[in-house]
Amino acid sequence: MTFLTVTTAACSIQAAVAAIPSDPDIEAAVESILSKMSLDEKIGQMTELSIDVLGDWKDGEFFLDPQKLHEAIAVYKVGSVLNAPGGPTAQTPAKWEKLIGQIQEVSMKEIGIPCIYGLDQNHGTTYTLGGVLFPQNINVGASFNPTLARRAAEITAYETRAANCPWTYSPTVDLTRDPRWSRVWENYGEDPLVNAIMGVQQVKGFQGDNPNKIGRHNIATSVKHYLGYGAPRTGKDRTPAYISPSDLREKFFEPYRACIEAGALTVMVNSGSINGRPVHANNELLTKWLKEDLNWDGMIVTDWADINNLYTREYVAHDKKEAIEMAINAGIDMSMEPYDLNFCTLLKELVNEGRVSQERIDDAARRVLRLKYRLGLFDTPNTYPKDYADFACDRHEQVALQAAEESEILLKNNGGILPLKKGTKILLTGPNANSMRCLNGGWSYSWQGHLTDRFASKYNTIYKALVNKFGKKNIVLEQGVTYPAEGAYHEENEPEIEKAVAAASDVDVIVACIGENSYCETPGNLSDLAVSENQRNLVKALAATGKPIILILNGGRPRIISDIEPLADGIVNILLPGNFGGEALANILAGDTNPSGKMPYTYPRHQAELTTYDYRVSEEMDKMEGAYDYDAVVSVQWPFGYGLSYTTFKYDNLRCSHSEFGVNDNLIFTIDVTNTGNCTGKEVVMLFSRDMVASLTPDNRRLRAFEKVELKPGETKTVTLPIKASDLAFVDYDGKWVLEKGKFRMQAGTSVMDIACNDTYKWTTPNK
Amino acid sequence: MTFLTVTTAACSIQAAVAAIPSDPDIEAAVESILSKMSLDEKIGQMTELSIDVLGDWKDGEFFLDPQKLHEAIAVYKVGSVLNAPGGPTAQTPAKWEKLIGQIQEVSMKEIGIPCIYGLDQNHGTTYTLGGVLFPQNINVGASFNPTLARRAAEITAYETRAANCPWTYSPTVDLTRDPRWSRVWENYGEDPLVNAIMGVQQVKGFQGDNPNKIGRHNIATSVKHYLGYGAPRTGKDRTPAYISPSDLREKFFEPYRACIEAGALTVMVNSGSINGRPVHANNELLTKWLKEDLNWDGMIVTDWADINNLYTREYVAHDKKEAIEMAINAGIDMSMEPYDLNFCTLLKELVNEGRVSQERIDDAARRVLRLKYRLGLFDTPNTYPKDYADFACDRHEQVALQAAEESEILLKNNGGILPLKKGTKILLTGPNANSMRCLNGGWSYSWQGHLTDRFASKYNTIYKALVNKFGKKNIVLEQGVTYPAEGAYHEENEPEIEKAVAAASDVDVIVACIGENSYCETPGNLSDLAVSENQRNLVKALAATGKPIILILNGGRPRIISDIEPLADGIVNILLPGNFGGEALANILAGDTNPSGKMPYTYPRHQAELTTYDYRVSEEMDKMEGAYDYDAVVSVQWPFGYGLSYTTFKYDNLRCSHSEFGVNDNLIFTIDVTNTGNCTGKEVVMLFSRDMVASLTPDNRRLRAFEKVELKPGETKTVTLPIKASDLAFVDYDGKWVLEKGKFRMQAGTSVMDIACNDTYKWTTPNK
Repeated sequence: MTFLTVTTAACSIQAAVAAIPSDPDIEAAVESILSKMSLDEKIGQMTELSIDVLGDWKDGEFFLDPQKLHEAIAVYKVGSVLNAPGGPTAQTPAKWEKLIGQIQEVSMKEIGIPCIYGLDQNHGTTYTLGGVLFPQNINVGASFNPTLARRAAEITAYETRAANCPWTYSPTVDLTRDPRWSRVWENYGEDPLVNAIMGVQQVKGFQGDNPNKIGRHNIATSVKHYLGYGAPRTGKDRTPAYISPSDLREKFFEPYRACIEAGALTVMVNSGSINGRPVHANNELLTKWLKEDLNWDGMIVTDWADINNLYTREYVAHDKKEAIEMAINAGIDMSMEPYDLNFCTLLKELVNEGRVSQERIDDAARRVLRLKYRLGLFDTPNTYPKDYADFACDRHEQVALQAAEESEILLKNNGGILPLKKGTKILLTGPNANSMRCLNGGWSYSWQGHLTDRFASKYNTIYKALVNKFGKKNIVLEQGVTYPAEGAYHEENEPEIEKAVAAASDVDVIVACIGENSYCETPGNLSDLAVSENQRNLVKALAATGKPIILILNGGRPRIISDIEPLADGIVNILLPGNFGGEALANILAGDTNPSGKMPYTYPRHQAELTTYDYRVSEEMDKMEGAYDYDAVVSVQWPFGYGLSYTTFKYDNLRCSHSEFGVNDNLIFTIDVTNTGNCTGKEVVMLFSRDMVASLTPDNRRLRAFEKVELKPGETKTVTLPIKASDLAFVDYDGKWVLEKGKFRMQAGTSVMDIACNDTYKWTTPNK
Repeated sequence: MTFLTVTTAACSIQAAVAAIPSDPDIEAAVESILSKMSLDEKIGQMTELSIDVLGDWKDGEFFLDPQKLHEAIAVYKVGSVLNAPGGPTAQTPAKWEKLIGQIQEVSMKEIGIPCIYGLDQNHGTTYTLGGVLFPQNINVGASFNPTLARRAAEITAYETRAANCPWTYSPTVDLTRDPRWSRVWENYGEDPLVNAIMGVQQVKGFQGDNPNKIGRHNIATSVKHYLGYGAPRTGKDRTPAYISPSDLREKFFEPYRACIEAGALTVMVNSGSINGRPVHANNELLTKWLKEDLNWDGMIVTDWADINNLYTREYVAHDKKEAIEMAINAGIDMSMEPYDLNFCTLLKELVNEGRVSQERIDDAARRVLRLKYRLGLFDTPNTYPKDYADFACDRHEQVALQAAEESEILLKNNGGILPLKKGTKILLTGPNANSMRCLNGGWSYSWQGHLTDRFASKYNTIYKALVNKFGKKNIVLEQGVTYPAEGAYHEENEPEIEKAVAAASDVDVIVACIGENSYCETPGNLSDLAVSENQRNLVKALAATGKPIILILNGGRPRIISDIEPLADGIVNILLPGNFGGEALANILAGDTNPSGKMPYTYPRHQAELTTYDYRVSEEMDKMEGAYDYDAVVSVQWPFGYGLSYTTFKYDNLRCSHSEFGVNDNLIFTIDVTNTGNCTGKEVVMLFSRDMVASLTPDNRRLRAFEKVELKPGETKTVTLPIKASDLAFVDYDGKWVLEKGKFRMQAGTSVMDIACNDTYKWTTPNK
């Protein structure tokens, strides 16, 4: 840029070392087996089938068909199988032991290579009956507690291995950049740093600390959905995204970089397109950014049938063969086919015709084999439920309860209406008041989460939890609006609002549980972001009774409530808190737990005003001089990071180790935080930065560090928030990282200070 | 791309020749005067001030202050002045003659160079009292009549010159890519081709055919707002846009390319940022794309105060001086300051410090001087009202009426409820029923268009036009909802719906005129795209009477009406039809005019489902096989190109000169169109293409040509639609044009055919 007046200083930030250190023994074993494998066998390792096509049903029970198994593994040499049978539906550990055991038996016998089985264990053991379901990732984000994130993943890994499965398609580190999207709740919110930190902790929780040696209590991860999935232009799932080159590298790539450098063994790819090119056909993003720039020797798997989608949906290929050619040459190592063995035949033809190189096949097969060695599957193809005595134990469930408690967000508490006093008489109403399905959302026992009330009946809905907490005589349940047992997630039964209004006459307070029923992926698309009209009418009718209202928001994304928000004195956003979400809420409402969750996304106020907290400063305009007054403001219901407590906190004395810094400095911020209220509480101390002037219009603010601390009444803690100076860099118009000379405004709570960078530094490695 | 199997053929498309041929006499004159100019004088030519700062008010009258004029022109050598005084407010031709004449007198005397005066004459003579106001550009788009577009611009040029002004900030060829945007109505709709064709015709209408010799009946254009202005991510005016490199070149650039190659003399720049960089600071977009790639010797002017905004709003510069450095080095030739002469001082410092080169100043001054020579201002600094006898003549007004008639769109006509029979008794209701302000929108006598009922009182509101057409006794006016005379555009008075309902008892039909009040730019931002709740309640209450309803949609953008649309039997979208819009509507309702307008944009059905007709095919998904059914559909209220007539048309026998073609071929399509109804009508025959497979996910469909034809009942015309084969190309991920081997599906009406490209061609010039 000719207009930059600063000089560009030499930058000592190094090119990436290997993301995962190479293990010589594993590499030798991989090369040894690879050298003996035929082309068919290598291609088989690149193929993943759904278990559906390997079996059949009899008397309501799924069983594997030896003929189909033989064809897939002995004839086509298939190296991977995924998914739960039946819709899909969760199975018992014993059933999994048997199913996966049979596959491994055939695989070891026929090709001498273990199969790798994969499951979407997305917020706990989605597909393992009896295992622990944690809050969804959006709640993990809201907890701002990385320790809990790691512990939840450790437990899930253990309980997944208990069912003989070594691989999960988790964690999801897409950024929620559009509140309309049906997968908002599957990741940790809108912020790159929160997704990076939580993703890293979950990668470590799933895999343990040594990615070359995944123990029998751990499983391999698949970080997904690489990348830019959370920003479809229309808000609909799997539809095209348009992302600036700068945002793609600076924000969307960041959690993947962090997870891969934390050892993530596989990555699953975004089903959509970015700037017109499907990610599954994008060599730059798959091969250059992931494998080359990060020097990463892990494995890239497609999402469901996405090679087919290159010709059936994206129309970038004429037929399946050309689609395979594109995807494999772009860098795909394994195709989640999931039904069509013709993939193997066509890929072999492509190699023989020189359209896919032998080197590319070797590279892909090597990456799959390396993964299997790292998982120890050659030595131990199976694990057994009997060796996992802690499966679904109380200690595991207690973690799920704590995770739910720390993730539920108090958004409004007028006049200290919460906590509710003992003996308060409550009308519990709304469609989400008595449903395990609503508490868990999708990816719970089934894809759409629609079977949860059958499988999770031993846990407490909000109603049951409130009865347990406040006593049956104090809880009147009259829902007013209900969801039908079958049908689309957005359907509602004929409302009975007048019944709820009548039931309000005898109570002290109304607790209205509104939001969404469970859904997942494209069936969760919406056309209107507001909470349903029935539910809003219910709240309006109840407000007319004059009884105070507490709104409980329960759903996967922020449905707009601007017309009913003023009618409530208290609001708790519980998001999708899982099987212990009702109990957690009861604890909060009763004051036995002090809420500490913070908003992981921006909650919009109006349909036509969707944004994220890190909008560029020019989204807002002050009034200007003269004939033409341009002014515009960003108006949201609740900002990212917002959340109340039953106590209050004061921030003082923000300071930093450096008033002026260079790119290689470590900046140590400290801040004194005091509990100024009357009860113990946890506070998420967040450090935000603002680049005051930058060569690209700067973001309004960016989260740079956070720490959750517990404080007793009157207690002060000095919280240390260290960052690297290079964390303050951004990606320039030309795709390069740059840290520019000049002032940065740092903020923690109400405490603000300025620091200055001493020069301008630019570098091309993907790391900050 | 490694996966492309097609060969890339040599491409004979040439680099751009000069967009505007150089005139040796003008060039010699420019160099001669430039060689004598001081740095101060050159910088002065680059400076544009608002007339506000050159004068004062006395007894309600604006007058120029000789002292201020002297300072600006004699001391600072300012070369350009813009805007109307008073808010701004339209002035009489006599007043303009005097004001601009005084400026020219000082300019010629003090610096020997004429001043160039500029006005936003945006849909006719916005700022000239008594002149003709045409429908807004969105209606020009809806007319699909390029001849009318040109004629309207010719008249506007004539009437602008009649008021001694040689320069308009028109045409606006931004693409309406977001229906929430407050400037939807200022351009020709969402399609690049429609904007290009209408923009070119208006450039020719304003300027005439020889850009080197703009006659006294013509004026210079400023094509605006270059570029990507119509796609802010949040929908709000002047906020950041994120556009893929491919879309930016292929779609957003196209109308600018076309207008510049048609001779456009100046370009005004988008106030916002694209992919993080403010366009005013983007050398690639301003200098490379416009000046170098197109070999264009025209002049680039900022929008209002936009150099200041680089440091006050975008924060890419630390202060005004750095902002000037950025903008001038990016390629800005003239700064619409508009208040601050310090621009001149600071720019001079920058030159003296070597931060802006002398060459850049010479280049900018040369471009301004060239413009003034091309306009003949050196010879004829002034024009006089007395020489423009046709100002606001009947013939001019008839063009405005025809333009309104051809742009109003019949969207629904259940049971042939329209046209209304003579003697039909009508309840006319709704806030837009009796307002010249609503018919005209913004840029009408004032910026916000709020003074229109004062200045346009001689024209007919819908009410007056219906009274004239159907007789006073047949029209009951009871509006139910009204806008206040003052305040924000979205405010409404306390509704009186029950009065409208009562008035419906005696009538045969209800004509409900709903939509928006006038607005412009950021004051027109919205938070909800639905038509106001009051207006929707009005329509619902009237529907309950059982009387048939005709909805008249009158506003700048498509406000969502999905809950009331089913209640209407007839719907006419009149957009912003200008001073003759009421009369045009009356003619249509009475059947004296057969409607022929077509939708220039996609009318959304739901708030959370905003798209354009040329969405990528992967926005839609069919149901897919297996466990996971992904499906999604694009649902809109009315598609781009939609519009009914009182007659019907049949399409037969689409054919093409080529079944297979190369990049240099001209493809001649012909189609037989027959009027199969009972009255004469005009039909817009549109040719759409779909690239069946492409290396970027292809667009669902693209308009490639159109022609409006008139047909008598039973008459058949063979319509010829010629295109260049290269019109079917797209811009690839790497920013290069590519026409790929393979099949294209062509469609006109219901008639479909396939043609095939014989090879793959790629080129880097900006032309298609």
